[in-house]
Amino acid sequence: MVHPSRRKARFYRCLVAAFSFNKLVIFGVGLIGGSLARALRERSGATGEVVGVGRSMKSVERALELGVIDSAVLLDDDRALEHALRGADFVLIAAPVAQTAPLLRRIAPFLDARTIVTDAGSTKNDAVSAARAALGDRAAQFVPGHPIAGRESSGVDAALPDLYVDRNVVLCPLPENTPESVERVAAMWLATGASVHRMSAEQHDGVFASVSHLPHVLSFALVEQILEAPDAALKFSFAAGGFRDFTRIAASSPEMWRDVCIANRAALLTEIDAYTKVLARFREAIDASDGAALEAAFERSRTARSVWQQGGAIKAADDSTQ
Amino acid sequence: MVHPSRRKARFYRCLVAAFSFNKLVIFGVGLIGGSLARALRERSGATGEVVGVGRSMKSVERALELGVIDSAVLLDDDRALEHALRGADFVLIAAPVAQTAPLLRRIAPFLDARTIVTDAGSTKNDAVSAARAALGDRAAQFVPGHPIAGRESSGVDAALPDLYVDRNVVLCPLPENTPESVERVAAMWLATGASVHRMSAEQHDGVFASVSHLPHVLSFALVEQILEAPDAALKFSFAAGGFRDFTRIAASSPEMWRDVCIANRAALLTEIDAYTKVLARFREAIDASDGAALEAAFERSRTARSVWQQGGAIKAADDSTQ
Repeated sequence: MVHPSRRKARFYRCLVAAFSFNKLVIFGVGLIGGSLARALRERSGATGEVVGVGRSMKSVERALELGVIDSAVLLDDDRALEHALRGADFVLIAAPVAQTAPLLRRIAPFLDARTIVTDAGSTKNDAVSAARAALGDRAAQFVPGHPIAGRESSGVDAALPDLYVDRNVVLCPLPENTPESVERVAAMWLATGASVHRMSAEQHDGVFASVSHLPHVLSFALVEQILEAPDAALKFSFAAGGFRDFTRIAASSPEMWRDVCIANRAALLTEIDAYTKVLARFREAIDASDGAALEAAFERSRTARSVWQQGGAIKAADDSTQ
Repeated sequence: MVHPSRRKARFYRCLVAAFSFNKLVIFGVGLIGGSLARALRERSGATGEVVGVGRSMKSVERALELGVIDSAVLLDDDRALEHALRGADFVLIAAPVAQTAPLLRRIAPFLDARTIVTDAGSTKNDAVSAARAALGDRAAQFVPGHPIAGRESSGVDAALPDLYVDRNVVLCPLPENTPESVERVAAMWLATGASVHRMSAEQHDGVFASVSHLPHVLSFALVEQILEAPDAALKFSFAAGGFRDFTRIAASSPEMWRDVCIANRAALLTEIDAYTKVLARFREAIDASDGAALEAAFERSRTARSVWQQGGAIKAADDSTQ
């Protein structure tokens, strides 16, 4: 894994100000896909054609209206899809992760040998499997990616040209990817202002099961638990700032998180089990009124979180290179 | 329980613009106690004497410097404490909840018959027991209270005159409290801009175990779990906005939360057990790749949280009276 420093990232941004492409085809022009299109145009000045592919006209019409894409194609229109994919430099799949496999199967028959396909899913082992199954020998054309840039809002109206500035993007290259393909995808994300990191799909799924997928499940579970209480209304009426922050992620898309939980099932179950053990230990300490154990654990957490919060500054001073 | 509407609260604020006291003695002049003193002076124009009591000079000197209190007394100085408590209208105990019992025992020998004692602890059953044990027949002078107004920062430097504006304060009156005592404490908090609610100590502790104490434990537990992972540093380095919000409350005071967990042990254990069951159910659904069950639960949570977020507006339109 490589952590480019922010200074390095800025240097790359200068280099890639001239980042260009002839044709970018985005499957799913919402927050993530729309923000990429806007960033490439409005930040790096790329002038290539951006084609949006959607399941319904409604889903792509708004992107057309906003000028985020140049043309719109319906997913089930064979001829339009073939035309859209012909000569494309890049394909980005930016849809709930359960759609990665069917979309790759849909793309496969029309995939140009020169096209690099990447995705923006929150889980990567499943994307790798999907690519190998759908693309076979051409899986080398697929470079798995994950921009870490969620927002509470979704849809193309929420897309921003600076969504990725100073955000992390993780690439999980396949052994068969050419270095050039990986570099091209990295350059695309660097052009949006993001920092680009690499790790294996396995490692990625473990890390994000822990720091992202598990917290989402825990947050949804708290709201579910309160809903089941006979005095739920009273409880909600006194929920305050702590509850608000803790459950902000429970406002996330149910469809997206359903897919993530299932796609990253193995790693997530490992994290849930480890978490349940820690919680059981805390429960024991509370039951035993073991103030010393509780205070020590809470102090460890507070300190770790405080170090983490200062991490931005520490990273910026780091001068490791890509 | 009574929910005064905001309109009603504004009406009360007009009435209590003239809220006054001769002497207020605050045990623990930090964020909560200091903000009360500042609110009463700077918002309601009260001119009474404010005495701060602390365990060390250091803890009260800063409050004196900032003009938050008029005089400072050391907790172990019998004569000064006796003098401070003579003729006091109000005593506020604003310290970690494990100190409520020892502070009440310390106050008892010097307590004037006209003084109303109240507190600001996050747990109320333990405060009631402490008052009955320390004050005996004079427990009627103790009106248990809980201002819902935490901040990440603490200490008197973080105290604000408007900390309580539009916040909730819960009072849990004892059967032996006179209506006048309860009204006087309510008037004091209304003068700070807060809304005042009443419920039993039992009900209070159940509600806050669920919407406040449990989320704190869950948040501390997540950070603890990540710390125990062999790749903790890597995990923290990719933690993003969702993690930040979910763990904001894990930056809270370890001492305060140790005390809360133990003081509200029974209710908190009930909530931890109920939560563990919900999490186990989510685990089963994930293990079974039961997308429908997951999506339905996540959707319920998202909807409930969205209704809750709009609750402020709904409550403001409510016209129930105190």
